[in-house]
Amino acid sequence: MAGRSTRRRVTRICVDDPGVSERADFLAAEEPLGIRIGGQAVSLTMRTPGDDIDLTAGFLFSEGIISSAADIESIRICDGSQCGHDHETGDAMGNVADVTLRPGLATELKRNFLTSSACGVCGKASIAELRVPGRFRLEEDLLQVPAGVLAGLPGSLRSAQRVFDKTGGLHAAGLFSGAGEVLAVREDVGRHNAVDKIVGWALRGGRLPLRGCLLLVSGRASFELVQKAVLAGVPVLAAVSAPSSLAAELADEAGLTLAGFVRGGSMNVYAGVGRVIPAR
Amino acid sequence: MAGRSTRRRVTRICVDDPGVSERADFLAAEEPLGIRIGGQAVSLTMRTPGDDIDLTAGFLFSEGIISSAADIESIRICDGSQCGHDHETGDAMGNVADVTLRPGLATELKRNFLTSSACGVCGKASIAELRVPGRFRLEEDLLQVPAGVLAGLPGSLRSAQRVFDKTGGLHAAGLFSGAGEVLAVREDVGRHNAVDKIVGWALRGGRLPLRGCLLLVSGRASFELVQKAVLAGVPVLAAVSAPSSLAAELADEAGLTLAGFVRGGSMNVYAGVGRVIPAR
Repeated sequence: MAGRSTRRRVTRICVDDPGVSERADFLAAEEPLGIRIGGQAVSLTMRTPGDDIDLTAGFLFSEGIISSAADIESIRICDGSQCGHDHETGDAMGNVADVTLRPGLATELKRNFLTSSACGVCGKASIAELRVPGRFRLEEDLLQVPAGVLAGLPGSLRSAQRVFDKTGGLHAAGLFSGAGEVLAVREDVGRHNAVDKIVGWALRGGRLPLRGCLLLVSGRASFELVQKAVLAGVPVLAAVSAPSSLAAELADEAGLTLAGFVRGGSMNVYAGVGRVIPAR
Repeated sequence: MAGRSTRRRVTRICVDDPGVSERADFLAAEEPLGIRIGGQAVSLTMRTPGDDIDLTAGFLFSEGIISSAADIESIRICDGSQCGHDHETGDAMGNVADVTLRPGLATELKRNFLTSSACGVCGKASIAELRVPGRFRLEEDLLQVPAGVLAGLPGSLRSAQRVFDKTGGLHAAGLFSGAGEVLAVREDVGRHNAVDKIVGWALRGGRLPLRGCLLLVSGRASFELVQKAVLAGVPVLAAVSAPSSLAAELADEAGLTLAGFVRGGSMNVYAGVGRVIPAR
């Protein structure tokens, strides 16, 4: 497992300037993480190494495989020797998360999830069934957040980011209190992973639901990110860029406040505007 | 199936200004596309509707499931009646791609791919095995491209994009001739999908390998995007933002020219700099 960024020699070319220079550049580290449950592969995700146990826990929770930290017996990040598989090279060292679930759940899962080969969408009656059913009711979260607090989140996220400034290649997710204090910041080449790392951290720390909190993502807001926020019980999702149509629909349906284009002191609120106080 | 963008009422809030206004905003459409081969679900991807047959063909090619257009007997985008499944609502109308492969391949696939439950990463000796083996040898592509042509691609992509300016929520991929002429532009909420739509279009039109061509992506360059470029035989991948460590490594290994931060008349070249002429 490498670090979160790697150094590489690059050729910088300016079209109008004298031309070419060699220099060192830092790239965001990207490596595969295989997730296995009871020895069976369930997912292979490309991620930035770091917080791999949180990432795994967050993934399992967001996929509806587990519903609490108690469902996990253990998560081990394997190197070759612990895995019981042969590795000819060191590439896969630390790139496998070996999950053991509590016994009852493991059996149930085997029956319902791993052996399923049903048609993914076609057998479903509506988009609603794509959703992993959530346990937390967002409508009960009466948080009120000043627009000024939301507007300040991207700046706080940026200050708290450790790798972005060096590589320019990472998505970030930040969890904040309702007053805008940073609770956790995670970075990853995959924006879903950055959120899963936050959710896994919260799950393992007994912090779910994330009542009264704000989640900010550095990019766009997709259906999947809204779903992750809803499942974690966070009432407000803010994005620096645009949401998709389905992100706004799901937010509306689930009672999530969804703000997009949060930048330069303004924002668009696509759902749940009742939680936003339009003032500093 | 909706269009590529949908209209939605949003609340615009400016922190320092008088405050709140209601207005209409366009959001990038995001809907699920289920891909089935011979009736069996193999993938569910969130995508922007449009060019779904190209997307499906490009996905199958990028995953190494097919290696030429002749491997496809048919791809039908299903609505409820054609699917042979019951749909209680119209949500899934047109959101399933029903693929029939040529008979021999279908059997082979069933044996090797769909029934596999091997450990995704752990059983593999190195990152190299994550790669889908490519048929085209990039090192034979002797294309020389002036840096000025590369620097001009983002502007051309932007002009050719149909939805981005309206929604701000779409990734784009553009295929260009070695002289910088636009050959195809595709947009999607998922950056991988935008590239798959290009690759599928090229595959179905008998244009693979994309010898002498340039591929530009509007965001970052990940391992998967580099892999798609290599498989399609395109010798140059340019990205407006940063590449990941693994993207640069794979590009190097495969003989792909990889340029990042292509913006404002300059760029960083991470691999295959020999194809770039440092001039206008």
